[in-house]
Amino acid sequence: MNYNYPNGKKPQQKSINRANLGMTLESDIEVTNQYYLEKGIAVIYKKPTPVQVVSVSYPARNKAKITEAYYKTPSTTDFNGIYRGFYIDFDAKETKSKTSIPLKNIHEHQIEHLKRITDAGGIGFLIVYFQAYGEYYYLPFDVLYDHYQDSLKDGRKSIAYDTFKQEAFLVKFGFNPRLDYLKVIDEYVIPGLLKARACR
Amino acid sequence: MNYNYPNGKKPQQKSINRANLGMTLESDIEVTNQYYLEKGIAVIYKKPTPVQVVSVSYPARNKAKITEAYYKTPSTTDFNGIYRGFYIDFDAKETKSKTSIPLKNIHEHQIEHLKRITDAGGIGFLIVYFQAYGEYYYLPFDVLYDHYQDSLKDGRKSIAYDTFKQEAFLVKFGFNPRLDYLKVIDEYVIPGLLKARACR
Repeated sequence: MNYNYPNGKKPQQKSINRANLGMTLESDIEVTNQYYLEKGIAVIYKKPTPVQVVSVSYPARNKAKITEAYYKTPSTTDFNGIYRGFYIDFDAKETKSKTSIPLKNIHEHQIEHLKRITDAGGIGFLIVYFQAYGEYYYLPFDVLYDHYQDSLKDGRKSIAYDTFKQEAFLVKFGFNPRLDYLKVIDEYVIPGLLKARACR
Repeated sequence: MNYNYPNGKKPQQKSINRANLGMTLESDIEVTNQYYLEKGIAVIYKKPTPVQVVSVSYPARNKAKITEAYYKTPSTTDFNGIYRGFYIDFDAKETKSKTSIPLKNIHEHQIEHLKRITDAGGIGFLIVYFQAYGEYYYLPFDVLYDHYQDSLKDGRKSIAYDTFKQEAFLVKFGFNPRLDYLKVIDEYVIPGLLKARACR
């Protein structure tokens, strides 16, 4: 993708929104990852959606045609890769609600997976899009996990928007990169990890 | 998977071979990864095979049936994950040849991908199975890359078995873990990476 502006300058940020780009959260992240890849910043991919293939026919040479298959539930998250030597792992979620994101949007196996990743020294998080506000948040796994564990005790079924305002990090939406979530990692995550890393 | 031996001891290694387990290289690696996961050693998954879905029908509630789809060429490698804080990325290849593995088995985009990964501080490699010898090798990416670049100059189309004997590491085939490739990483890869890692 290549943007050329008449005066060599990007338009004001406020003129950009999802509505006029007409893309989905997932494709916004994919475009961002493509930018990171091309610039040599990070290598992060979306995993293919797992499919259970039941039958295949061979109507033409060299091209198998799948004629019956079903979508499977992914056992992990959608995105992973490497940035500045760190293993990165996350999923993207969105909600129409103005007040919270339902915990049922976040599968238990995804929480287990992200727990394993962060325990192993990786960087795990969610990108959460509040459609009503046009706001994208980087929700660190430890914040997610605290709220998830609380919900097991008190039966609460969602994470409040206020929690995002207080404990998550806003990700700016722009042209290129579209959703610069690595900026959050640079500023708020890696400094702590480098400090904790023992020099063996 | 759970093995119980009458005398509490594993049978001799030499009694184990692929023939009597009847599995493929890919599934041997998946069984190994499952072992690593359950023991809390590493979190490494095979990526799903990418499929281009053309049409879907909805014969029953909640279960979409894919009625036309095609396999796509993966843009990366098959396996990735995290071990001891390091990003791990590899592919599995096998050959019937007694003398070499053809370079055409290793796609150019996979070499590019592994180059990016190792440049970013990740651990990239191939697991290569020589069927004729029943031997599995851990081929470090830098060795692969040297031979790949030589091939662009001299037109050679394969990597010799002798190269594996000299520059790759044998991976032992056993019961559990089936193919303990992380042992190679522990012994030969991580010490060098830790030494190179600056304490910032």
